[in-house]
Amino acid sequence: MELLEQRIRTDGKVRGGEVLKVDSFLNHQMDVALFQEMGKEFLRIFGDCGVTKILTIEASGIGIACIAAQYFNVPVIFAKKSKTRNIDGNVYTSKVESFTHGKVYDIIVAKEFLRPEDRVLLIDDFLANGSALQGLITLVRDAGATLVGAGIAVEKAFQPGGGLIRGMGVRVESLARIKSMSEEEGVSFC
Amino acid sequence: MELLEQRIRTDGKVRGGEVLKVDSFLNHQMDVALFQEMGKEFLRIFGDCGVTKILTIEASGIGIACIAAQYFNVPVIFAKKSKTRNIDGNVYTSKVESFTHGKVYDIIVAKEFLRPEDRVLLIDDFLANGSALQGLITLVRDAGATLVGAGIAVEKAFQPGGGLIRGMGVRVESLARIKSMSEEEGVSFC
Repeated sequence: MELLEQRIRTDGKVRGGEVLKVDSFLNHQMDVALFQEMGKEFLRIFGDCGVTKILTIEASGIGIACIAAQYFNVPVIFAKKSKTRNIDGNVYTSKVESFTHGKVYDIIVAKEFLRPEDRVLLIDDFLANGSALQGLITLVRDAGATLVGAGIAVEKAFQPGGGLIRGMGVRVESLARIKSMSEEEGVSFC
Repeated sequence: MELLEQRIRTDGKVRGGEVLKVDSFLNHQMDVALFQEMGKEFLRIFGDCGVTKILTIEASGIGIACIAAQYFNVPVIFAKKSKTRNIDGNVYTSKVESFTHGKVYDIIVAKEFLRPEDRVLLIDDFLANGSALQGLITLVRDAGATLVGAGIAVEKAFQPGGGLIRGMGVRVESLARIKSMSEEEGVSFC
């Protein structure tokens, strides 16, 4: 998506070899006008898939997912990062490894909101190692719901997540796919 | 706001004396069509205040804030719950006490996104003890920005937060104000 790539070129900041800061428009300050264009693009891609729910993960996926959901006319569910290991029988749960924070945490979704008859579109801001997306996929499969695919804002295509998730047979559509990046050369896209 | 009160009556669940579960439409599963009507109502209330930024706090305020921001044509910033005490000089920080989880955590906003010339509207899903809102107010004041007010979805008016924040001279507008609630009697509004 040219608009998003252009914005990353203009306002993204590469820090070290693998950190892309997009916090001026995507995941700390959020440009909702940009999110609207991204939402329309997700609708163009997944609009004929019969989506009934959008599932994302707290916190930075929520804004993109909510704006996109308006075009699909469906509710959003966000998987919560669980603070306790004390899981009751009313939630689906899976594990996500955070490479940034170097730890594993549980994510949960209440069973009542993810039903076997649902057709679920996953939306998230970043795809790098794919751990968050794998966690969400596990929740959808445990619910017996149909996974329509995953709509990602920014994919670091030089990291293994995209290949891994596509290798599982999941349709992954990323609005901007980064081939390589460096502080000197900036960002180049696939 | 009649639409929100009606929804709370229909789909909200009172647990014990002080817990109102609205996770089927507000803060786990999110009804974005409802959020649109709430966003329009916030615009009706605060539309003539020259708002330049909406500030919320992760996670459950983000969806409401992003949908509302479309009507104001302004960006959203969400204050992040900091995982480290290692605060560098590039952020404003304050403390929030979580009564649900029984602990105090730091919230941060990058200084570059909150400027003295900004006119800031706070948006959050709940107002009870007022700790989250007080934390956000501190961030705005530390930035030297102008605080326009706070737009809240659900205020538990029987808890001290609303009185506390209004007593600080802050304009607080809540779309639904709960006077009392119980498992037996349900919810009654102010």
